[in-house]
Amino acid sequence: MKIELICTGSELLTGKVNTNAAYIGSRLSAIGFELSLVINVGDKKQDLLQEFKRAFERSNVVITTGGLGPTFDDITVETAAECLNLEIYPNGKVLNSIKEYFLKRSVDSIPKINEKQANIIRGAKVLENSFGTAPGQMLHFKFKDSGKKYRKTLFLLPGPPEEMKPMFEENVKPFLKSYSVGIKKNGVLHVFGIAESTVEEMIKPVMDEAVSGDSKSVELGILASKSVIDIKFSVSGTDELLVDETISKLKLGFGSVLKDNIFGSDNDTLASVAGQLLLESKKTVSFAESCTGGNIAAAITDIPGSSSYFKSSVVTYSNESKMKLLGVKEETLANFGAVSKETAKEMAESVMKLSDSDYAFSVTGIAGPGGGTKEKPVGLVYIGSADKKKTESFKLNFNGTRKDIRKRTVNTVLDLLRRKLIVKHSY
Amino acid sequence: MKIELICTGSELLTGKVNTNAAYIGSRLSAIGFELSLVINVGDKKQDLLQEFKRAFERSNVVITTGGLGPTFDDITVETAAECLNLEIYPNGKVLNSIKEYFLKRSVDSIPKINEKQANIIRGAKVLENSFGTAPGQMLHFKFKDSGKKYRKTLFLLPGPPEEMKPMFEENVKPFLKSYSVGIKKNGVLHVFGIAESTVEEMIKPVMDEAVSGDSKSVELGILASKSVIDIKFSVSGTDELLVDETISKLKLGFGSVLKDNIFGSDNDTLASVAGQLLLESKKTVSFAESCTGGNIAAAITDIPGSSSYFKSSVVTYSNESKMKLLGVKEETLANFGAVSKETAKEMAESVMKLSDSDYAFSVTGIAGPGGGTKEKPVGLVYIGSADKKKTESFKLNFNGTRKDIRKRTVNTVLDLLRRKLIVKHSY
Repeated sequence: MKIELICTGSELLTGKVNTNAAYIGSRLSAIGFELSLVINVGDKKQDLLQEFKRAFERSNVVITTGGLGPTFDDITVETAAECLNLEIYPNGKVLNSIKEYFLKRSVDSIPKINEKQANIIRGAKVLENSFGTAPGQMLHFKFKDSGKKYRKTLFLLPGPPEEMKPMFEENVKPFLKSYSVGIKKNGVLHVFGIAESTVEEMIKPVMDEAVSGDSKSVELGILASKSVIDIKFSVSGTDELLVDETISKLKLGFGSVLKDNIFGSDNDTLASVAGQLLLESKKTVSFAESCTGGNIAAAITDIPGSSSYFKSSVVTYSNESKMKLLGVKEETLANFGAVSKETAKEMAESVMKLSDSDYAFSVTGIAGPGGGTKEKPVGLVYIGSADKKKTESFKLNFNGTRKDIRKRTVNTVLDLLRRKLIVKHSY
Repeated sequence: MKIELICTGSELLTGKVNTNAAYIGSRLSAIGFELSLVINVGDKKQDLLQEFKRAFERSNVVITTGGLGPTFDDITVETAAECLNLEIYPNGKVLNSIKEYFLKRSVDSIPKINEKQANIIRGAKVLENSFGTAPGQMLHFKFKDSGKKYRKTLFLLPGPPEEMKPMFEENVKPFLKSYSVGIKKNGVLHVFGIAESTVEEMIKPVMDEAVSGDSKSVELGILASKSVIDIKFSVSGTDELLVDETISKLKLGFGSVLKDNIFGSDNDTLASVAGQLLLESKKTVSFAESCTGGNIAAAITDIPGSSSYFKSSVVTYSNESKMKLLGVKEETLANFGAVSKETAKEMAESVMKLSDSDYAFSVTGIAGPGGGTKEKPVGLVYIGSADKKKTESFKLNFNGTRKDIRKRTVNTVLDLLRRKLIVKHSY
């Protein structure tokens, strides 16, 4: 079944982020459907007419958001009707409920402009809007494509997310679910520590094996951001047992080649996984941050309940603070510099003692854009890692902007912490 | 001129928010152009082929994002070439720069899979990618529409925003600017400390006056996020002097009603403005953070050069760390609790002394979702503010999620710092 989404509104072409498309895409995907296309189109009749025509031709279900409001640039209803050659009429019941809406808000009479919102396409079902004046509409119709007429369905939903979402949940979802014959299940695995292209090479044999055999279809996507790589896969078929089995095989297969480089699945983040491991092992952590400037602590404390395992982070930007707050020795800074493995080690050891934590990590580096030299270029980062037994240091060279370098450093520290804590972990 | 954007990537159909479309839309609008359509399409060749064909037919400029990576589902280059009936060839120069990219990262040989990224459409100009391996491409070509051939331009840009944005700025923008006829200028002012609806009421008379008179058009938008309110305005016309004059009038008008609540314009953030004020007054600041967990330091150090004025931040999550690292008195914690004005004050005073900074701010509160009580509900935050003369405290109650509460607290601290530093400031 082809499902297409048309989002109307000139603001979507001039800088507004389209969160409706993300919401609908993710909700459909959760029940085994996928959007075939998303269109953002402005409030121009000719443009919208063209998109409607094309969508009606090639998709089974067309969903629109936006353009149901009272103002002159709200043209979705009239344009859809025109495209389908159907008339629109003022629906008495809708008119009454709009009146009530205004009464509730102590407005005596319905503003003339809002009467337009009672216009319904002949044959459409009215979808109630509990959070605004614009009702939605659902219309079954037949549309000619290559000489043959096909039964199609159109949903007109309002643009404001708080109105669109409940209407989608109450109307579009149940409708589609009734059509769902096959089963589609998804999974995401998150990987850290290997390059995107290497991940692909490593998982290719697993994929090849999963795809072989019939009565199911397997899709795969790989996405990298700030050194974190996501493997998204979905399996569809008519036999739920077979779909589940294929999903399990894929997970096992990916696990067997990528091993501990897989840090989690679905909504897991490096911070949530490291936090969970700390919680399970009843250990605590602290940080001493220079170039990450508090971002490691911010990531860790983003997780509710992190107070159980996070002790403290000391963000020291200057040499002076490194000495005063962390007791880094003046000679160390003079002999090796602030960006050195020696300083990193002292920072980690010191914050571990000060915070009385089981583990401590430190970061000192050059996030740029300025401050780099030939010996110590932008992107050079030393990470110190201390526990009760030993202190290590890691030298890293990151590419990218200041933001990238900081974010990659945070991810690397969280991953080092995670690796320290894994004994056995399976997905 | 019709400009169309095609964003490829199945993730855009299954829940990922398309921020590239918002960025490109807003940047084009800033130079007086508007996207006629945005398409999100999956990584399926037939779908993409169809979109290319239609876009080439009806638009003068087609921009794509995504699908330039090394993996099998990156199909933008080959699909565009196929649609235009042009060949692709491995570009030696690009291949070398990809090799260099890997060498820099101490990878000896270029992974086989990445060689694909050197494939260039015959006739296209290579657009350098300083932040990744995928080069962009710009191609001028002729395309048949209703029997006539038209000159068109295609830009292939990478999907990751940090790679796409600089490539857009360096290539697409200058190309389009050379075609621009009318003048459109924009401005944004950032406001903190008043509610969105109040801002709207306050600036209405200014807008009404600006709109009066002819030969120009004025647009306004107000957007609120985490207590920061953006006033976006644009003026277009053919007379540049008149456009400039209207922009100045608007700024002056907004300034006269909103006064110090305006904290900046354009790319200014609370952190950059507070930082600039610290720099100018040669003052330094430090923080003691509990519920913001390092986010104040992260915001301040997001600004390059912040090492000149930022001394340190001590992130103490537990009572124990508050005592050990900041010397908060045990009696204070026992008598008033960690979330109290007394603790906030001690934290601020202590970090100011420890860091030897001119100003210090502290934060202690309940970010939720757990941990709230009737007396101290989720969202209750105390901010301490210390300088050489006095220590104050502020009690705040924030709404929203954990993320919202943390972000609003960070913004409030930065705004308090800014207000402390303003003597005279004009926009």
